[in-house]
This record gives sequence, structure tokens and C-alpha cells, in this order.
Amino acid sequence: MTLRNGKEFLMIPGPTNVPDEVLRAMHRPAVDIYEGPLIETTEMCLRGLQKLFRSSGKPYIYAANGHGAWDAALSNTLSRGDKVLVLESGRFALAWGEAAGIPGLQMEVLQGDWRKAVDPDAVAARLRRDDAGDIKAVLVVQVDTASGAWNDIAAIRKAMDAAGHNALLMVDTIASLGCIPFEMDAWGVDVALTGSQKGLMTPPGLSFVIAGPRAVEAHKTADLRTNYMDWTFRDGPEHYQKYCGTPPEHLLFGFRAALEMIEAEGLENVWHRHALLAEATRRAVGAWGQGGALELNILDPLASSNSVTVVRFGGHDPAPLRQFTRETCGVTIGGTIGALSGQGIRIGHMGHVNAVMTLGTLSAIELGLNKTGIPHGRGGVQAALDYLGSAL
Amino acid sequence: MTLRNGKEFLMIPGPTNVPDEVLRAMHRPAVDIYEGPLIETTEMCLRGLQKLFRSSGKPYIYAANGHGAWDAALSNTLSRGDKVLVLESGRFALAWGEAAGIPGLQMEVLQGDWRKAVDPDAVAARLRRDDAGDIKAVLVVQVDTASGAWNDIAAIRKAMDAAGHNALLMVDTIASLGCIPFEMDAWGVDVALTGSQKGLMTPPGLSFVIAGPRAVEAHKTADLRTNYMDWTFRDGPEHYQKYCGTPPEHLLFGFRAALEMIEAEGLENVWHRHALLAEATRRAVGAWGQGGALELNILDPLASSNSVTVVRFGGHDPAPLRQFTRETCGVTIGGTIGALSGQGIRIGHMGHVNAVMTLGTLSAIELGLNKTGIPHGRGGVQAALDYLGSAL
Amino acid sequence: MTLRNGKEFLMIPGPTNVPDEVLRAMHRPAVDIYEGPLIETTEMCLRGLQKLFRSSGKPYIYAANGHGAWDAALSNTLSRGDKVLVLESGRFALAWGEAAGIPGLQMEVLQGDWRKAVDPDAVAARLRRDDAGDIKAVLVVQVDTASGAWNDIAAIRKAMDAAGHNALLMVDTIASLGCIPFEMDAWGVDVALTGSQKGLMTPPGLSFVIAGPRAVEAHKTADLRTNYMDWTFRDGPEHYQKYCGTPPEHLLFGFRAALEMIEAEGLENVWHRHALLAEATRRAVGAWGQGGALELNILDPLASSNSVTVVRFGGHDPAPLRQFTRETCGVTIGGTIGALSGQGIRIGHMGHVNAVMTLGTLSAIELGLNKTGIPHGRGGVQAALDYLGSAL
Amino acid sequence: MTLRNGKEFLMIPGPTNVPDEVLRAMHRPAVDIYEGPLIETTEMCLRGLQKLFRSSGKPYIYAANGHGAWDAALSNTLSRGDKVLVLESGRFALAWGEAAGIPGLQMEVLQGDWRKAVDPDAVAARLRRDDAGDIKAVLVVQVDTASGAWNDIAAIRKAMDAAGHNALLMVDTIASLGCIPFEMDAWGVDVALTGSQKGLMTPPGLSFVIAGPRAVEAHKTADLRTNYMDWTFRDGPEHYQKYCGTPPEHLLFGFRAALEMIEAEGLENVWHRHALLAEATRRAVGAWGQGGALELNILDPLASSNSVTVVRFGGHDPAPLRQFTRETCGVTIGGTIGALSGQGIRIGHMGHVNAVMTLGTLSAIELGLNKTGIPHGRGGVQAALDYLGSAL
Repeated sequence: MTLRNGKEFLMIPGPTNVPDEVLRAMHRPAVDIYEGPLIETTEMCLRGLQKLFRSSGKPYIYAANGHGAWDAALSNTLSRGDKVLVLESGRFALAWGEAAGIPGLQMEVLQGDWRKAVDPDAVAARLRRDDAGDIKAVLVVQVDTASGAWNDIAAIRKAMDAAGHNALLMVDTIASLGCIPFEMDAWGVDVALTGSQKGLMTPPGLSFVIAGPRAVEAHKTADLRTNYMDWTFRDGPEHYQKYCGTPPEHLLFGFRAALEMIEAEGLENVWHRHALLAEATRRAVGAWGQGGALELNILDPLASSNSVTVVRFGGHDPAPLRQFTRETCGVTIGGTIGALSGQGIRIGHMGHVNAVMTLGTLSAIELGLNKTGIPHGRGGVQAALDYLGSAL
Repeated sequence: MTLRNGKEFLMIPGPTNVPDEVLRAMHRPAVDIYEGPLIETTEMCLRGLQKLFRSSGKPYIYAANGHGAWDAALSNTLSRGDKVLVLESGRFALAWGEAAGIPGLQMEVLQGDWRKAVDPDAVAARLRRDDAGDIKAVLVVQVDTASGAWNDIAAIRKAMDAAGHNALLMVDTIASLGCIPFEMDAWGVDVALTGSQKGLMTPPGLSFVIAGPRAVEAHKTADLRTNYMDWTFRDGPEHYQKYCGTPPEHLLFGFRAALEMIEAEGLENVWHRHALLAEATRRAVGAWGQGGALELNILDPLASSNSVTVVRFGGHDPAPLRQFTRETCGVTIGGTIGALSGQGIRIGHMGHVNAVMTLGTLSAIELGLNKTGIPHGRGGVQAALDYLGSAL
Repeated sequence: MTLRNGKEFLMIPGPTNVPDEVLRAMHRPAVDIYEGPLIETTEMCLRGLQKLFRSSGKPYIYAANGHGAWDAALSNTLSRGDKVLVLESGRFALAWGEAAGIPGLQMEVLQGDWRKAVDPDAVAARLRRDDAGDIKAVLVVQVDTASGAWNDIAAIRKAMDAAGHNALLMVDTIASLGCIPFEMDAWGVDVALTGSQKGLMTPPGLSFVIAGPRAVEAHKTADLRTNYMDWTFRDGPEHYQKYCGTPPEHLLFGFRAALEMIEAEGLENVWHRHALLAEATRRAVGAWGQGGALELNILDPLASSNSVTVVRFGGHDPAPLRQFTRETCGVTIGGTIGALSGQGIRIGHMGHVNAVMTLGTLSAIELGLNKTGIPHGRGGVQAALDYLGSAL
Repeated sequence: MTLRNGKEFLMIPGPTNVPDEVLRAMHRPAVDIYEGPLIETTEMCLRGLQKLFRSSGKPYIYAANGHGAWDAALSNTLSRGDKVLVLESGRFALAWGEAAGIPGLQMEVLQGDWRKAVDPDAVAARLRRDDAGDIKAVLVVQVDTASGAWNDIAAIRKAMDAAGHNALLMVDTIASLGCIPFEMDAWGVDVALTGSQKGLMTPPGLSFVIAGPRAVEAHKTADLRTNYMDWTFRDGPEHYQKYCGTPPEHLLFGFRAALEMIEAEGLENVWHRHALLAEATRRAVGAWGQGGALELNILDPLASSNSVTVVRFGGHDPAPLRQFTRETCGVTIGGTIGALSGQGIRIGHMGHVNAVMTLGTLSAIELGLNKTGIPHGRGGVQAALDYLGSAL
């Protein structure tokens, strides 16, 4: 017995539901790469990125996923042997740091806790001890989808300033841009990066890096540069140089359509929508947790991501529930990964997602909790509804 | 403030949400109409219709909407001056009867009640009084989307038989086929018809009529025949004759994809899915009705449609609520029409619709009831959830 | 061995190549039929039809093919027993006349010649003999795709006027509107009709009828009216009445996109494009005919359609050539039909077709003539190229 | 005046015309990256690449363009300071060599001639002088789209063997795979790479690298490795590792559809189709060159690419002609680039291209030569037709 047939929801922390408008914009003939409509599309995308990142920095578009953007950020600004300080709050800053090791960077982890955000004071303390200035860059994710943590980038910048340290601040906003406020220039971020497939509602295959003035300066002496990622080549006068080769046209047409949707809604409205849906989700989990096994992985609301919610299952196997929501309800929710692998679920609420999709998803989970016999408090969906009713 | 951006739901009693698979099947080049893949598609569609109607009768495909199918049913079997008996249970059988008047049929209404299904005993009684056999056909809808009534076609047939009357039984299944059991041959229906855009999940523009043996016989003497609707011409040997001219290719490719989806799910499973979603909807309305203004239009569960639910608002204006669900939540629900115009809402749950869409829709309505201050009992969504939890 | 893989061309006299823009406009969710974007689309389509027909008459949109439009034209203006005069110049006016017979009209054929256009003098002569005014309507096609003839509608109107006859002039422009000049009001046409799938570049399933003042007047007393085709109902105030039921939304969105393309190109430019491509095609056939078997069916250039060219094969079987162009080259060309069945080919050059498609098609035919050993003069493609070179 | 409206052709050396089937395969919802249909698609793509490259080597799929694949080939097999020998035959091997310089490789150019293919004897001679074995890799393109040269990879391998040199042979097949025979294993190629957007008919954004056994061995000591391109990471057990992060799903679904089309046609048939279309193009240019200004850039037929033809304009400005074909005919042809910039045109005939597109394109060029007054011999299209007629 299935109640699946109907619109299916992809409620994982990326890739996310692609709007019809974006898919339709991609369903078109290829065009010349030297002249015509692609040139204007590139301009629109670059300007749109500056608006998204809230920055007057230099944006770069890569035919690559987010891991490619990691390389781009590092290789354009650092040299072999440089040390990067990785601020742990889950899986992804660590992974970025591991990536740094391959071409010859040194990586030091500021150990964190998967149930908490990065502690800015700890950052300041570590940097104060770096008398020699060995640390050339600090790597942090705004949101870690493995833990559901949200890091306070502005506070981390202030901590770096307080420590009087001049490392570059590099921020991965893959799981947050277009969902959660980000203010590159106001916050003093040197390099920020993201991907197309989460808050930006575009199929995966594009990633974006934006360089502030100090990163541009650092680029001049970086010796890790590679041809494909290199900013210098991409700064050249020819259109194809902006992509170091053939532009990924169809993805660009889709991304442009997504930017137009965000523009039409208003970026602040997009942030507010995500905030409401995230809080509704947390309220539901809170209700289920009453006298039951479930618990939010991040307990501090101020450290919780508004784009993804990670739920711990208290030792119960989440696999049957995920199978139920997917096969009986047509709702795909994420499993936990990394250190939390097999211990819970990850509910994505990022990108092209609205209240009824979120409430439908929570309904599927509540049905699934009942069906699979996982002990839980009653009324999760009702709690989410009550919250949204009060917030609207 | 809006929480609309995300997948939008079209929860009206038709047209309904078109699956991606159907839209994709329509996004293709035109093809020759004399040879090639279209020929096989026609065969698949005709065979699929027989399976849907549960009939070995002769199916016809019209480039037309459901009103066109009404004409086709009447004009192929009746003659000027013939009388049809229309069984009222809402708006649509009446409209069909009105349509019959234009080319010169006489129409008599067996008056009904918009809050009840057709009473088979009343049918039998009226037919018994037709000593002269003036009534040549009985027209009835299986579901009337204006009232939300479901008529018991098998019982009506039995009533006709009990009256010993030989009028043709013509059934409009536009709002029910592919949602609710229909057994043309087993129930003794002479002509049945439907459209593409409701339970069959295809864009509007196609309609279907199927003729049983008595209808085929009646066709021989019918003098209302028109060229475009004429079965005789469509029975001809050439492929284009099946459509009396150019086949509506893209819609056919879409319809074929929809048939394949129904086949994959299993028609009985499709019926069961609709039954569960309809009952969940009624449970929600029931909860809202506790101590409040709302009420199901059809109170008898045995007379309620599983494809659409009509809700009365007890004098409260439903327009602000519909605006709220549409503009704030991205959920379009129907307004009431005809004699009920302005008095309530119509919630479609037909075609490509699943539990999470239904629960999301009920959530939007519950939010809207709060927002617009319509008095209602609490816990509608919870009641729907509880029901589905028990049924799954 | 095949050289087929690449863009395929559908060069038949309908349905025609559907532009990407039209298919893309159709790839979208269904919408409400009572409010929202569909209402504006209807307005755009109706206004666009007036521009296409060059008329201030009343346009009607049918979910139906062209045969449905035939019925609509007749049933809305005539009564049982009325006589229609059909002007033969191929297959299609005859078929329209045959259609008229089914609901009870009398049909008289003004016999013509499949190799010539209608002779206006013969029309005048026949009408002068109709002292009793029995003939209520004259039916003619502007282009007959079976013969390739183009009829001079303005001259036929003048002939009717010269005969002092007041029959309605009804013109089928299915194979010409959007390809060849048509001036409904200036020429004094009373009813004109067309379909979506030829010059109008939209998938089949829509047809259009437009009524001038005399047709509107005739409608008042017509007794052939049927519900689905009825203008009176469609003149009603509700949006759904314009379609007598559910509007065929997706086809309408596609048609609107097609109208925008025609508007962007300019209707006169569209006509001119068709004129050049048609003449290029005739030049090619002329060259092939030198000392060979091929011949244009319509020898008089002034009677030749600019939307389709019918070529006689002088006793040679055209089937292997059509198979070659289709299977080896990916070019589908039409076979001849009706009285010319099996005797030649029909080359469509209507709708979304440009010089390179036409020259590619002629190239495929020239290759096919060689391959299949049909005797023909050399240099058909070259002749077409030379003509276009001189005309551009 | 334009004859443009109709199917437009993109006849440049990439990106190429994307088949409807590929675009349709991309028009679908995103899916989970950890389970479900994407896993099988990855398998199909990897196996398909082995078939395309004719190799049992290890294939890698990158979300990147061809320049990214260049980096992947180099960084996975070489170390800082290593020397690569670039075999010049146009622009692209040089560009690859320049790319090698950025991360610290030494580049030596074996100077070539833009009007000739690489001379295997010169390769052998240079390698014989490399007593110290400084040259670690030989870089060559199978086809250079800037010159139109085709290089004989098998002969180059033999030359390397004859010189007794053990450099890796790395071949860029971006402009040839899926168009022209390539036999990685039989010819002894160590690394081959290509992109999605030329012969493989998929939108740009994917590139592919395949490693033979010697490359796999070299990888173990390569110190240029970067995270994103790294084969070791991509060899890991998790599905996402194959893409080093989120797979570019939609492009993969498109690529899979393209592979199925190639499989259906048969790879040898695809090669043969390209051979015929290329020769037809050269015949046309030959005819135009009679007593005129035009000339093939590559005069030796054995050194000519079957995927692109470069034509020199003898001092005449090609810009007006390109504008004419594009704006009047809807055919985009390429301008020459690099050392040939402004001196001629590049006619793409790769990927989803058939005889009628090629003949239509040649027709547009012939019309344009007349229109823009460039002196040329007559009968180019006729020569192409004659050739195809004889070859079919």
C-alpha cells in the first residue's frame, strides 16, 4: 500500500527541489559561446552572485561542485606548506581541511563538538598563540549539514580581529547561501564559496567563489594555483576565460532563472521563509521528543541551522522510517552521515520549499514514527502548525 | 509575508496536477499522422481506456473537453425530440441535460437535492410512470463536483431494470474515472464518458466516450449525429478517422504516459489511495466542524465522493481563506459553484495527489481558518493524520 | 547506412514542426480555470486571432481539430435542409461538404479539377442559376493540401457579389493561415476557420472559427446548433463558457507562444518567407522535371499554394523515395492522398520552416531521386539556391 | 528580410546541437545522491565511457569542462618540474601546455604547422634526443578545432615506441570522441580525455578522463594532485566519491541519454556518418575554391578532421558572411580563432548532425558567399550532394 503517487518531495540537505522555472530555462538549444545571449547571462549571474553574497568582491563561476570550489578558494590564495586552521562543527569543514592536505597545505583542526557551533573565543585563543603567523587561513562552514550547526561568522571575524591575527577568513556557505543571512563585506569575510544545488535551487554542477580585497592580494603570491581554478586566467578579457573554457551553458540558464526567482521574492523574504520553516520543524521535533527517543542534534536554538535540521533517534534505527517516508509517502529525507551515521535523520528545508511541503514532510515523518514504532511524543505536526499560525 | 515559494498544489476538482512524466512525454517533436509511433500510441490509449472503464465496449477519443463528450454521447445515440431523464445531484447532470436541449432533445429533471446522492428508488418510480417509453436515456454523473455527491451507478441500473425500462444509461465519469471504482460492463452502463484532466492526470483537451452494445445499436438510428462526433466515421479503417481528422498528438503522448503510471500503480491501488485521502479530508472537516461553522455538504459518507470534498462555510465568506491558501501557501483550492456559489470551498483530491499533498493542503486550510477568523474546531490536520496512521 | 541522426524535419502539410518556444510554454503546471494567468492568455489568443484573420469579427477557440471547426462553422449558421455549395479544388472542400451531410444539410459540388484552382466565373454562373436562393453557404478552402491548389478568395467573393447572391462565404484556412495572406474583412468573408497545427506551429488539438456580421446574424436562426460548438453559449460572461467547459490550457499556452513568435517576425514577413520557400521548392521541382518524370500537380503558378507543393511522379512509385528521405535522411515528406493517392509526394513548407530546412529537404529528395532511380533532371537544389540567392 | 525562423543549426566546433532526447532526460526532478536511480546511471556512464574510448582503463567523470580534464590528466600523473612535450598542430595542444605551466610543469613545444598534422617522425626525433628522460609526458590533441587538423595517434605512439621513450602519451579527444575512430587500448594511449559538449551531444559541464595502466602507476608518485581532480579519492567506495562531492545529476541523466543514442546508432555508424558529412563539406569548399578566394586550411585529406572544417578566406573578411548565415538563415558557424583569427570560418559537423543539416548549412554559406560578394567557384552544394549521392 502506497500513498506516494503525487508530487514527491526531496527534503535532503542538497541537492534540493529544482523549480519548474529552472528546469524549463535549461530545456533549450545550446548557443554560441563567443557571442549572443550567453554573454548577457554571464553578466546577470555575476551581478546576482554579488547580491547573494552581499559583496562587491570578485565573483567566479566554476563548472564544478562545491568540492571544486574548496580547491579554488585554497589554490588561488595559498602556497605549499601554508597552514590552515579548520574550525570543526561537524563534517564539512573537516573535509575541506582534508582536501587542503592533498596539494600540500598543512591542516590544523580546532576541535569542536558535533552538537555545538564553533566557539569564537576558542578561535581567538588559538590565534593568539600563533605568534609566528603560521596560520594563513581560517576555514569554516556557515552551516554544517552533518550536524545541523550554524556558525556565527560575524562573531568569528570579531574573534580573529580581537586576536590581532591576519589570517584569511574563508567561509563555505554551500548549505546556507540563499537560505540564511550572509553579509560578506559587512562581516569581513575574505573568501566565500557556495554551490548551485542547495539554497540556489539549480541542478548540481556549478559552484561559486567570491574574493574580497585581501584574497585578491594573497592571490598574487599563491603558488598552489592550477590552470582550471586560476583567478588570473579567469580575469582575462575573453568571455570563455571567465569559465576557463566552455561555459556550462544550460546550468547557467537555469541559475539565471533561479536568481530571478530570488530577486522576485526578495532575498530578505527568502531568509524569513527559511527561518519560519526551520523553527516549525524544530517545534515538531520538540513535540516528538517529549517522553520519547528523538532529540535535536543541536540543542541551542541560536546555533541551529535554518536550512537543515538533524535529529537523533536515541539508538533507534532510522532506516525503516526513511524507507517509509520515501516509498509510502514519496518524501525523501536524509540519513545522518559521518560520526552520526545511522543515528538519525536530516530534514532539509532549503531552497524551493514552502510551508505545505514542510508540513507535508513532517506529516510523513509523524506517520512513519507511528508505523515503525519509534517512541515519540504526540503532536509534532500540530506544534509546527501552531507555530506557523502564530508567526504568519 | 509569504510561505508560497516551493512546489505549488492545484487542489481543485480539475484540471489537476500534471505529473512530470506526462509533461515530459508531451515535450517532443510532432510526428506524421499516417504512419510511425502515433499508430501504436492510439492502440495503447484505446486499450487503456477499456481497462479504465472496465469494459469491452468501443472507446472513442475526442479532441474536445468533457462538454464535447456530452455531445458525443447524446448525438450518437438519440434523435430530435427524444426525451432524456436527468438525475440531479448537483450541477453537472443538469448542465448535461441543458446541453441536450440545444440540438432538440427534451429534457426532464428528476429533481434531487444538492446535499444527497440520486435516490435509485425515485428513478425507478419515475420510469415506471413512463408507459409510453418516451424516455430514451437516463443521464447521471458518478460524481458531481459542485456538490461532492457520489452516485451509486450499480444501484441506479438495478432500479432501471426493476422498472423494466429500456432507456439507455449514460454515465459521466469525468470527475471519478481513475479515482473511484467504475465497472461499466458489470454494472450495465450503456455509454460512459470522461475527460483527460482530472483523475487521468493529463492536460485538458481530450475526452473519451465508450459505447456498450445497446448504445452501438441505438447509434444506427440516431439522427442527431454530427460529423465531428460521429462514431460511424470514426469506426472507419484509416487512422485519422479515429480522430475525425488530425489526432491531438501531444496530448495523446501525455495520456499514454498517464496510463502507464496508472498501470504501474495498479488501478485498484489508485482507487484505494483516493479513498484514504478523501476520508482523511473528511475527518479534517469533521474536526473543524466541531463547534464551528464548517460542515460537509454531503453528510452521508456513503454518498460522498472520494475525488472532491465540498465544504459549507455556514455563512462565512470563503474568499479570504482561498486567497490566503493560494497567495501565502501556494495551494489553490476551489470555490463552490452553481447553487452553492460563494458558500464554501471545494477541495480536490483527485489524480496525481498523495498523502503529503493532502496533509499539506489541509494544513494550509487550517492556517487559513485561523488567519481569517472563521470559527472552527481545532485539530483537523491531526484528525486526518490519525486516520491515515490507522489506515496505513 | 543512415545519415539520419541529427535534427529531423517534418515536412508534411501538417502537423508541422513545433518550435522549442511553444513546447517549452506547454511544459508547465496546470492552472485554475476560473482566475489567474489563464484569463489573460485567453484574451491574448482571441486578439491574436483577429490579427491573424485580419478581422474585427468574433473569434472562437475550440478544443477540437479542424474537422471540429468545420462543424462549428456549419452548425452555428445553418439549418437542416439548407444547401451548401462546395467549390472543389482537391480533397478538403469535398470532405467539408460530406461532413455537412451528416447532420442534414444538402451538399452540391461545383465540380473542379484537382490540378486547378476554383474558377470564380463558374461560381458566379452557378449562383446566378439559383433563383430560389436555395444555396445558403459557399464552402471553399484557401489551400487544398491534397492538390496544392491556392484559391483566390477575393475573386470568389467578387464573383458571388457579381451574381447578386447572398449565400454566406465560408473559408477553410487550415492550410494557409499564418502562411499566406488572408484578409477576412477586406475580402468579405463571412466565416473563416483554421487549426493550430499548420501555419500556427502549435500541436494539434485547437481549432479556431471567426464569424463576421452576416454569420452572427445567421446564427440567430440556425437550427443545427449543438451544445459544444454553440456560439451563443460561448458568448456568455463566464471564462469557461468561451471554451464550453474546461479550457485546453497547455495548448493555449503553446498557442500564445506561437502568436508571440509571429508577432515578433511580423505577419507580412511570415508570408514573404513562405512565398520564397515555396517558389524555391517549385524551382527545384521544375529542374527535376526537365526531361524526367516529375511534374508539379498545379502548373499555374498563380494557383499554387505557398504552404505545400504537390508533385506528381509520372507513374513511378514514390514510396521508396519517401522511405529513403525518412530513414536515411530524417526528413518526413508527405504522400499524396485521395484521388492522387500513391501518385506522388507532398512537400510541406509551412509554419516553423526556414531556408535551410527547405534546402535540406530538397537535398534529401534529390538524393532520393538518384538513389531510387526515378528519372529526373539534374540541379533541383541548385535551382532553388539560385532562386533564393536572387530573391534575398 | 530573414528566412531564419525554423529550426536553427549550431554548426560550430562545440558546443553542438543537443538532441531533444538529451534535453528531455535532463528535465526532471533532482534525486538523492546516496541511493536510487543515480547509482545505476553512474554505472551506465562509466561503462559507456569505456566503450567510447575503446578501453578497459579507469574512467573518471568530472563536473568540469575540458580545461578541467586537462588539469585532471596532468595533476594525477605528474610532479612539479616535470617536462611535458606538446605536439603543436593548432591552438589546443598549446593551450593545454600553457595550462601545465601554472602548477609548475615545464612545457616544451614541438613546433608544428597550423596547416598540417603532427609529424610522427619529428616526435621520434625529439624524443631520441631526450637522453635524460626529462620528458615525462607527450600531449597531443586528436583533432585541433582551431586548425581543423587530425593527428594520427597510432602513428605517434609508434614513433614514441620507435624512439624507445617511456613518456606517457596523453590525448585530448575533446573534439573527436564520438565522431572519429579512437582506440585507446589498441593504440597504446596512457591517458585520454574528452568533454560532453561536442561529439557526445550533451550540454557542457561534464568532462571525462580515462587512465590506462601506466597512468595508474604514475599516479602513485604524482605530487601535483589536487583534491577535486584526485583519482585516489575518486576510487573510494562511496558513490559521491566518484564525483568528489555532489554528482552533477542532470547532466549525467542527459549524458546517459546521449550514450543510449550512440549505442542505438552503433559507434562505427556514428564514425561513418561523420566521415561522409566531413567529406561532403570539403567537396563544397573545394568547389567554392575553384578560381576563388576560399581554401581549406588543411590541404592534406589524410590530415583533415572529420568533425570540423576550417576554411581560409584569402584575405576577405568572414564576419559579414557569418552574420548573414546566422541572422538571415539561422545557421551559426564558427569564426577562426588564435593565429587564424579573422581569417576564415570553422564549420562544425560533429555530434547530432545529419546530411540535411550539413547540406542546409552549406546552402546557407553558398547563399552568403554570393550575398557578401566573396569570390568563389560555383556549385559547392552540388558537389556535396554529388558526393553524398555516390557514397550512400
